[in-house]
Amino acid sequence: MTARNIETDIYGRSVVFDGLNVSNWDSPEVYRSLDAGRVTGINATIAIWEGFAQTMDNLAAWVHRFETRADTLVQARSAGDILQAKEQGKTGVVLGWQNASPIENDLDRLALFHALGVRIVQITYNERNLVGNGCYERSDDGLSMFGQDVVREMNRLGMLIDLSHVGDRTTLEAAELSDQPVACTHANARAFFEHPRNKTDEALRLIAERGGVIGANAFPPFLRNGFDSTMQDYADAIEDLIERVGIDHVGIGTDYTQAQPKAFFDWIFSQQGTKRRDVSDGYPENLLHPKGMETPDSLDSVAAELLLRGYSEADAAKLLGGNWLRLFGQVWGG
Amino acid sequence: MTARNIETDIYGRSVVFDGLNVSNWDSPEVYRSLDAGRVTGINATIAIWEGFAQTMDNLAAWVHRFETRADTLVQARSAGDILQAKEQGKTGVVLGWQNASPIENDLDRLALFHALGVRIVQITYNERNLVGNGCYERSDDGLSMFGQDVVREMNRLGMLIDLSHVGDRTTLEAAELSDQPVACTHANARAFFEHPRNKTDEALRLIAERGGVIGANAFPPFLRNGFDSTMQDYADAIEDLIERVGIDHVGIGTDYTQAQPKAFFDWIFSQQGTKRRDVSDGYPENLLHPKGMETPDSLDSVAAELLLRGYSEADAAKLLGGNWLRLFGQVWGG
Repeated sequence: MTARNIETDIYGRSVVFDGLNVSNWDSPEVYRSLDAGRVTGINATIAIWEGFAQTMDNLAAWVHRFETRADTLVQARSAGDILQAKEQGKTGVVLGWQNASPIENDLDRLALFHALGVRIVQITYNERNLVGNGCYERSDDGLSMFGQDVVREMNRLGMLIDLSHVGDRTTLEAAELSDQPVACTHANARAFFEHPRNKTDEALRLIAERGGVIGANAFPPFLRNGFDSTMQDYADAIEDLIERVGIDHVGIGTDYTQAQPKAFFDWIFSQQGTKRRDVSDGYPENLLHPKGMETPDSLDSVAAELLLRGYSEADAAKLLGGNWLRLFGQVWGG
Repeated sequence: MTARNIETDIYGRSVVFDGLNVSNWDSPEVYRSLDAGRVTGINATIAIWEGFAQTMDNLAAWVHRFETRADTLVQARSAGDILQAKEQGKTGVVLGWQNASPIENDLDRLALFHALGVRIVQITYNERNLVGNGCYERSDDGLSMFGQDVVREMNRLGMLIDLSHVGDRTTLEAAELSDQPVACTHANARAFFEHPRNKTDEALRLIAERGGVIGANAFPPFLRNGFDSTMQDYADAIEDLIERVGIDHVGIGTDYTQAQPKAFFDWIFSQQGTKRRDVSDGYPENLLHPKGMETPDSLDSVAAELLLRGYSEADAAKLLGGNWLRLFGQVWGG
């Protein structure tokens, strides 16, 4: 058997969970690609800069999607739901946020959104919010008083705290305050590739020590070869994280932005979601993920590469989704 | 003539401007008191924790009030409007915010609110917001990137930056960044009475050096004798500020909370306007301002006290409103 054949079996048997997918949910090709890629589950971003009302609108669209795409999609609120999606050959969609902005100034709204199935919340996105400071902010004095309460309330409800785009001090304070493991759903090590979006060793070690998981990020600007990166560069980022924090604390978090137009990148890189900052002007017109894993339907190539590099089936299974599943089971309860 | 008689003349001749009034605008007694007190103008708080939509509702209520109470009230958008109110024997109401929360994450909304007449914006209230950190926050790393743009945009539009409830570092950064003078509409010196709501000498000196004004605050908990304070304690706070920053940089900023129910104090002292913190439980059921100046209709007692203490008519006029008027003319333009 070739490596590809070996991989096909193992990939097919594994729970494959992508820690971050922020694709254009209005585009049918996104769902075809997830289905063709046999992706067991994703953390689907449904809010980045949105406030309360807009996020509720986004949720309403997802309620509709779960009805109309029930042949390939199922909403996942628990680790069990993801296992069930695997059995049914569907993709379990975990609704997640990249910002705490949807609750605005009201902590009670966390429970409301939890009741609707939101299970992963990144506490800040790039800049300052009421909770803390983001990784691109000019300074970071950690969690606010409200932010401390957000961490405690997410612990109480059973929501996973995501620290990917979060500032260095806010990251450490949130990881220390949380009485549950936390995650970086999509970030690499800053010592692997120097970028504000990649995380310090101090943060990575703290998250791993407390049982958390770091999803290796395949977004090209955060990899060593930038827009020329290949799937092998992504595998390097995965291996780097394994060396830093151990095989039990690494997952995948591709940061796929499938079918997103240029306007999407202008928006996500804008200041507070409103003021264009031209950060995305250096981006290629059609931003693609690394060669060989451009979209979720080629995600099996990563599994093949891990096996070629000598990882056992058991270890590959941890990296592909097993570690995420363990973390979700612990944090979400039930 | 007794001191009272002397005062009556001078008070009557002066522009009397109150740097902060946060009374219950639904209560008719508030307007009776402003009229009886011959108050030339006030900075009327129309937003504390509100977001965009709620603040627009508050503005709609004020549009209605300016119509129905045109016999005693007029909206003031310029220093000239305040002088005109004086001539007409009315009270000029400047619409102001104690928080930048109404613009939410959109800088362009500042110009929208400016067009509706908002002229004074305190950039944070007690805690963290998207702009900076408040005086009760657990840490303060200054202005965010968005916050720097808020300062620049307020300069461009001609809106007065208020730093009363703002954290120490955010206060200094905003005062330094602003190319127009800034104010503390209602705060005393921390060296006069130790309280997080009172300001450091460093901040007071910087604000005065750059042409700004500090409104001495008469809210009892920020005065030396707390809830037992009298009008003389307030005059002490005024004199203390004069000694620190000079006669040209001090005004009054009573922080009147006339006709406000207990629920109002529970709300303003809550975390982010939503989570009750029981701070106000130590407050008397009917919080009154210092004896002898409980409501705006007795504000003339402060003028009498200043004259008794030996201030000239010219200096008293500066303190009663002249300094505010100079600052408004400079910052608001037109």
